[in-house]
Amino acid sequence: MIINYPNGQPYQFQPDESQSNTKQPRPRSQKVIFGGRGMTLEETINESNDFYRQQGQAVIYKKPTPIQIVKVDYPQRSQAVIREAYFRQASTTDYNGVYQGYYLDFEAKETTNKQSFPLKNFHQHQVDHFQRCLQQGGICFTIMRFTSLNRYFVTPASLLIQHWQQAQTTGRKSISLTEIAATGYELRLHYRPSLDYLTAVDQLIQKTNLKK
Amino acid sequence: MIINYPNGQPYQFQPDESQSNTKQPRPRSQKVIFGGRGMTLEETINESNDFYRQQGQAVIYKKPTPIQIVKVDYPQRSQAVIREAYFRQASTTDYNGVYQGYYLDFEAKETTNKQSFPLKNFHQHQVDHFQRCLQQGGICFTIMRFTSLNRYFVTPASLLIQHWQQAQTTGRKSISLTEIAATGYELRLHYRPSLDYLTAVDQLIQKTNLKK
Repeated sequence: MIINYPNGQPYQFQPDESQSNTKQPRPRSQKVIFGGRGMTLEETINESNDFYRQQGQAVIYKKPTPIQIVKVDYPQRSQAVIREAYFRQASTTDYNGVYQGYYLDFEAKETTNKQSFPLKNFHQHQVDHFQRCLQQGGICFTIMRFTSLNRYFVTPASLLIQHWQQAQTTGRKSISLTEIAATGYELRLHYRPSLDYLTAVDQLIQKTNLKK
Repeated sequence: MIINYPNGQPYQFQPDESQSNTKQPRPRSQKVIFGGRGMTLEETINESNDFYRQQGQAVIYKKPTPIQIVKVDYPQRSQAVIREAYFRQASTTDYNGVYQGYYLDFEAKETTNKQSFPLKNFHQHQVDHFQRCLQQGGICFTIMRFTSLNRYFVTPASLLIQHWQQAQTTGRKSISLTEIAATGYELRLHYRPSLDYLTAVDQLIQKTNLKK
């Protein structure tokens, strides 16, 4: 299936930081590495994954965007150039990898909302993928960022699945911040890794093992 | 890093089947689904992964080819078109996923050689990736196809790593079929899944657990 754009998002989404709770105003174009501020959610996670890999803590990557290639030029003495290609709908979530023998699988999304996280940030194929991975004993979760509040949460995939299924009868199209805060694990931004989400994953794993 | 082409391979590699051991000659263009004959190694594995997923046996995907996008057109009332992009060097192996709580990671390659598998089919970044994943308790392996012999083997990643490291001193640039057959698990082609490599993975897991 060829679509306009994955998730209807522009290619490199730069979140609006005008409502960020940093005290000192600074030009929007100036990037501050410390604490992940000024980085997109994707950049923050990629930087954390690089750090985890360098430290031998985990091996986690973002999957490349799936592309349907139609036309490629092979100019002499230089690299192949793709001249016609289209964005394709992904079948899975964006991130996966291995951590202490566990298979990790997650999706990272952000919202400018302040009171709830809209379900429209997710897609049926991602929910289906989470369900399949959970059945195989994978550790599945979402990283949700409330950009206006500058708050980050790791929530178990089961929360998304439950609300996704309920939405068909209740019509409720979002998960309240209250429930996310109660069910998930809040993350604070740090310096290297910016977003130390493995601390939350440790708790998720502990909970999963307790249920067994 | 932008390169000519990943692994120097053409985009959709169609293996030469002129030496295939099927008895009845048939036109090269005619594809026979049964037993994976006529399918490329990639198609055979993708078909097996689809089957495993449908049966709820495992969730394994091939990662999309990483592309560096330079220019995108947004024609009105139709989908975005990528007009300039380049193939990038992958950082990982091609396939990963989850199976019965285990993280699986593998690379699939083929050769027309009859007596040994050339190491040049692999790359430093794949060997490094295997080592990192093994440290995290992942189940790592290669699927090697000898196209001229129509033989398939699952070999533990440790065999590749060992030969890769030895090659720097011995200069030996391939792994003999004899050693592959002795260390790995031979697969026969079937009908759905074409390549039932999870049977070999079961044995790999058993061996890994015995070592613990």
